[in-house]
Amino acid sequence: MRLRNVKNKEQILNNSNYVINNPKEYKGKWYTLFNNKNAIHLEIGTGKCKFIKDMALKYPNINFIGVEKSQSVLALGTKTIEEHIPNLRLISYDALKLDEIFEKEIDTIYLNFSDPWPKKRCAKRRLTHENFLKVYDKIFKDKKIIIQKTDNMHLFEFSIISLSNYGYALKDIKLDLQNDENSDNIMTEYEIKFREKGNNIYKLIAEKK
Amino acid sequence: MRLRNVKNKEQILNNSNYVINNPKEYKGKWYTLFNNKNAIHLEIGTGKCKFIKDMALKYPNINFIGVEKSQSVLALGTKTIEEHIPNLRLISYDALKLDEIFEKEIDTIYLNFSDPWPKKRCAKRRLTHENFLKVYDKIFKDKKIIIQKTDNMHLFEFSIISLSNYGYALKDIKLDLQNDENSDNIMTEYEIKFREKGNNIYKLIAEKK
Repeated sequence: MRLRNVKNKEQILNNSNYVINNPKEYKGKWYTLFNNKNAIHLEIGTGKCKFIKDMALKYPNINFIGVEKSQSVLALGTKTIEEHIPNLRLISYDALKLDEIFEKEIDTIYLNFSDPWPKKRCAKRRLTHENFLKVYDKIFKDKKIIIQKTDNMHLFEFSIISLSNYGYALKDIKLDLQNDENSDNIMTEYEIKFREKGNNIYKLIAEKK
Repeated sequence: MRLRNVKNKEQILNNSNYVINNPKEYKGKWYTLFNNKNAIHLEIGTGKCKFIKDMALKYPNINFIGVEKSQSVLALGTKTIEEHIPNLRLISYDALKLDEIFEKEIDTIYLNFSDPWPKKRCAKRRLTHENFLKVYDKIFKDKKIIIQKTDNMHLFEFSIISLSNYGYALKDIKLDLQNDENSDNIMTEYEIKFREKGNNIYKLIAEKK
């Protein structure tokens, strides 16, 4: 998500109950923030936080951490959270360096409507590129589960190829999630917008042991 | 492909230069039929033979064998082959029993617009079901390559899941082959029909070592 600069972003992030501004200090002990040892799910590119907030409300026995590189975007996101949600935390951090702040403590990673980086020379920036999968390996606890949604066909093709060549098996695939009546789907801001435009929505669940 | 019974099908198959009516006798020595040790590619469900014929004409240094369960369909297919094509053979056989007639001598398997068997209880009949993948394991020579095209979204979803869980990596995926300008695509009879109807065409290339 690209957005204008939010001037008082540091102040907003510092004042939020949800944002962890010293994430390195919690490496290996994120569970202490939640006061329990429930599974920890991570959304990378959490944007304005709708998905991660709705997931945290829906699944109180899972702990959710939203990661967003842009401080401005995260600042806007935090302002939308009015509820008290004990199983939710947010951080602003670079996905390629997530092993600086987590060790083997993550159960599931969500990648929702990530930047598709359509140019071939930018493939390395896609969140399902091998370079990222190597980082995720270091922070996953046991079984590695990646759940991706996108409306970008080429990113989705790239992800299936990249994940399966890296040793992930595809556990589920939806090539038109928008028409899947059985789906128990929590939407992001982008997803709502893309559905309104009539875009196809793709979803995969990949697992590696 | 479902079709009316062709009354004189046995006679047509017996008279064809392409059809091998005693395939068990060639187990392990199909190369002797082609008088060379070039790679052998198999199309399972070869229908009216357009794809396998066009492939054989386009790639003279690869040997092609088309397998079609229905004798009636194959009989109709053979009638369309007027050219002399030394690198083409056809057989009528059940895909689940291909290990009766081949041993490790196949390089690539094509599955084009196979019956999707949409009902869940019929999943075992889909040509990318594990039961078939086990048979293919026995006839692949070295590296296992499966190339599938279909216009059936749910079959395609099923195939990606089944193949990746069986240890195949997806080497290429096209979610709208009909709009892929770089594609060097040979079409089947069905593909021509489905494209005219505006259907989406999916393609994958899967590989297992």
